[in-house]
Amino acid sequence: MKIKNHFFERQKNIPLSVILKILGKKNIKKNIIINNISNLINASKNDISFFNNIKYLDILKKTKAKYIISSDKYLNLIKNHCEPIIVSNVLKSVYSVTALFYPKSLDDVIDFTANTPNQKNFKKVKFGNNVLIGKNVKIGNNSIIGHNTIIESNVVLGKNCSIGNNVLIKNSILGDNVRVLDGAVIGKKGFGFFPEKNKNTRYPHIGMVIIHDNVEIGCNNTIDRGSLSNTTIGKNTFLDNQVHIAHNVNIGSNCIITGQVGFAGSSTIGNNVSIGGQAGISGHLKIGNNVEIAGGSGVIKDIPDNTKVMGYPAKNIREFLRENKWYIKLQS
Amino acid sequence: MKIKNHFFERQKNIPLSVILKILGKKNIKKNIIINNISNLINASKNDISFFNNIKYLDILKKTKAKYIISSDKYLNLIKNHCEPIIVSNVLKSVYSVTALFYPKSLDDVIDFTANTPNQKNFKKVKFGNNVLIGKNVKIGNNSIIGHNTIIESNVVLGKNCSIGNNVLIKNSILGDNVRVLDGAVIGKKGFGFFPEKNKNTRYPHIGMVIIHDNVEIGCNNTIDRGSLSNTTIGKNTFLDNQVHIAHNVNIGSNCIITGQVGFAGSSTIGNNVSIGGQAGISGHLKIGNNVEIAGGSGVIKDIPDNTKVMGYPAKNIREFLRENKWYIKLQS
Amino acid sequence: MKIKNHFFERQKNIPLSVILKILGKKNIKKNIIINNISNLINASKNDISFFNNIKYLDILKKTKAKYIISSDKYLNLIKNHCEPIIVSNVLKSVYSVTALFYPKSLDDVIDFTANTPNQKNFKKVKFGNNVLIGKNVKIGNNSIIGHNTIIESNVVLGKNCSIGNNVLIKNSILGDNVRVLDGAVIGKKGFGFFPEKNKNTRYPHIGMVIIHDNVEIGCNNTIDRGSLSNTTIGKNTFLDNQVHIAHNVNIGSNCIITGQVGFAGSSTIGNNVSIGGQAGISGHLKIGNNVEIAGGSGVIKDIPDNTKVMGYPAKNIREFLRENKWYIKLQS
Repeated sequence: MKIKNHFFERQKNIPLSVILKILGKKNIKKNIIINNISNLINASKNDISFFNNIKYLDILKKTKAKYIISSDKYLNLIKNHCEPIIVSNVLKSVYSVTALFYPKSLDDVIDFTANTPNQKNFKKVKFGNNVLIGKNVKIGNNSIIGHNTIIESNVVLGKNCSIGNNVLIKNSILGDNVRVLDGAVIGKKGFGFFPEKNKNTRYPHIGMVIIHDNVEIGCNNTIDRGSLSNTTIGKNTFLDNQVHIAHNVNIGSNCIITGQVGFAGSSTIGNNVSIGGQAGISGHLKIGNNVEIAGGSGVIKDIPDNTKVMGYPAKNIREFLRENKWYIKLQS
Repeated sequence: MKIKNHFFERQKNIPLSVILKILGKKNIKKNIIINNISNLINASKNDISFFNNIKYLDILKKTKAKYIISSDKYLNLIKNHCEPIIVSNVLKSVYSVTALFYPKSLDDVIDFTANTPNQKNFKKVKFGNNVLIGKNVKIGNNSIIGHNTIIESNVVLGKNCSIGNNVLIKNSILGDNVRVLDGAVIGKKGFGFFPEKNKNTRYPHIGMVIIHDNVEIGCNNTIDRGSLSNTTIGKNTFLDNQVHIAHNVNIGSNCIITGQVGFAGSSTIGNNVSIGGQAGISGHLKIGNNVEIAGGSGVIKDIPDNTKVMGYPAKNIREFLRENKWYIKLQS
Repeated sequence: MKIKNHFFERQKNIPLSVILKILGKKNIKKNIIINNISNLINASKNDISFFNNIKYLDILKKTKAKYIISSDKYLNLIKNHCEPIIVSNVLKSVYSVTALFYPKSLDDVIDFTANTPNQKNFKKVKFGNNVLIGKNVKIGNNSIIGHNTIIESNVVLGKNCSIGNNVLIKNSILGDNVRVLDGAVIGKKGFGFFPEKNKNTRYPHIGMVIIHDNVEIGCNNTIDRGSLSNTTIGKNTFLDNQVHIAHNVNIGSNCIITGQVGFAGSSTIGNNVSIGGQAGISGHLKIGNNVEIAGGSGVIKDIPDNTKVMGYPAKNIREFLRENKWYIKLQS
């Protein structure tokens, strides 16, 4: 499964002067052309990147990017390696430049090109009634697509996939044997914006949803695509109904996520993790491998490998049960 | 944005004798005609109203309504101002009379008049495939409507709105620049009924959903219309996916409501309120301005302005964190 | 309302040798034919059944089944009554044999036979636009079916039902006066599988969803069908929006289930039970009659009749409130 982003049209070769202007900076360098915006690792020589967290210092030292958006406190660190562009709000500046390179990524524009599929182009795919397929969609052999389902342009589905009824898939790449159940919405823009007094500013989401082989996505799930990186679900992970996954979440392989679980943005979940019904995982956390999270838990900090937790805030399950033992007595 | 209710056909000029009959009362006044049912503030001279809570005494003194449904304990209070109609169950009686005036408000009747829109009537609106539009729908210029979406009769949408795919909107008025994401259901009847042994009695919902400018409604949200008043969402408030809003809830402006949050009926939320994922707000509460409610919290009492709360039941966040500090130690 | 399962085609008369082979056992009995797999109570003389829990010993003594799948520890108990087939994993073996008898029950296969209904066959039923109806569907008089709704083959609906828009119903039998609101998904396969390293093994779900008279199912609800038994909702029970009901759950009559409540599999709920918003009920529990569960509660053990509980884990409501009294002081 290739996971190259082909969803958002990129403006190439934007003059640095244009970028500096939208960042409210004077243009002191003439005639320089920037090719793309990227993170420090992936950036090429003519790309612009950003630095906003000291733990990426080692990566900064090796980046190929020449221009780095950052804040005043990192000025001296950056100067040694690249040309700093100092701004007051790094994140907002990064998103402004992203919107410049990917102007169509700002909105969840409806794919009005989606239309009844031509069976000639999908010889070994079975379609239900009222299915709508966008342009340049690839669907592997022996896949089936349920009634009223919409697959927007450029989406890729593997072989033997089973997509239910009333499903919406956009900005996503699915592996083989993936099953998406009825009413799921996959790949819409994440819930990301800068709050402002009269009209919030949405920031662009150029990431995708990547779903690996043998995954099952439950009914009425909502899985948002990533902002600058991707939202991913690892091989053979199963999700029950009404699960919500925010942008940039990465879930490992062989996980079991039961009904109504919710993930806030940018958390990473290991392999072989099982999560009980209605549990919630806060944002930017790291959940280890082989973790068990009991139903109804509220996880607000990292969880190491091989741990069982329960409660709100989630704590070691033995502590939780010990603490609540007398209730169990009371009621029996 | 005009917010006059034009959704439920009203029977005008119902004889008082008919009203008294359904309330199980004898008709002692002949030939009196009632024009409408309304609350004490809005009632006109020929309307019937009701009194069920001592805190509205000042309003009772000023009401223009002549006939007041109430209970025995308020008889003497009412006698001084109006003609009391004393019943054993005020709420149930009010709903019976409401159903008499608004017979179509009892059910979520499907709008079978909804059909493929005639583009001539919507010259600057873009429609996806299989869109169904009811009668007398108004949609502002430059709005877009996604595939399979249903907009029932009499709904009003402002300019520059973006309505996703598989959306259902009924009994609602939306401002400008409102974005409704895929799978949302807006304006259905609230979850209100009188429990009865063999067949519950649903009460009528004559309220609307009013959504102000620049609001975003997330995927698969469910927002119920009001019973006697409206459900409202203030300007520039953003809702994430899978949020549930029950009838009569009023949310202020510039709020941020994240995924899977739920509101029970009739609560009022101030401006600039942020609510973390999966939090729940009980019914009939008053949440102040600038309140922050942490994810997973269960709010069961009023929250004053400028407060941060967390936990179930939700309490001051410093208390919550202090109380749970040792768990944080345990796990790190 | 007849509740005979007519949803899954059964292979009849499978040689015992074939069954033993898939269980990895040698065939020591020649030429024996098995007619069906069933539980101990319902099994006929030529059926195979299973025994996995000592509390069903009395039933074992009376079963008509001759062959019993069980584990080594029950060998002697079974020997006295039937012919034991001893396996290492009873549940997995039962599901393998079930899949043999009901090969189409493994997957949520899309009903590609569903198509525009012929009004001649449904003279007193009103259909919206784009409705799809499968084969052999029965709909009672004066029922109405909303736009874009899909009712798969063999489903039975009673009289005076109101099915909303964008609804999916499969493998279900509904009584009279049932109301299903927009976006609900009823009757899909439960979230049941054996986790395996590279590709989980789903187990078959041959159960149905049975919904009795006068029930209301809320918007975007997900109600899964049973695995070997059924998921049932009793007369006059009302469910609010975004409720999730897993497989084999049995809910009594006259219950009130508010928004975003979730039920894990195989729990039994009594009559006249009310459950507040976002509460969660763990699996395999028994909730008595006349129980009240406060919003946000997490129920992890059985609850006796006539009890009010609150909290996570849910405990007697007076204990919960006493314990949290000081918070209430703090904030007022």
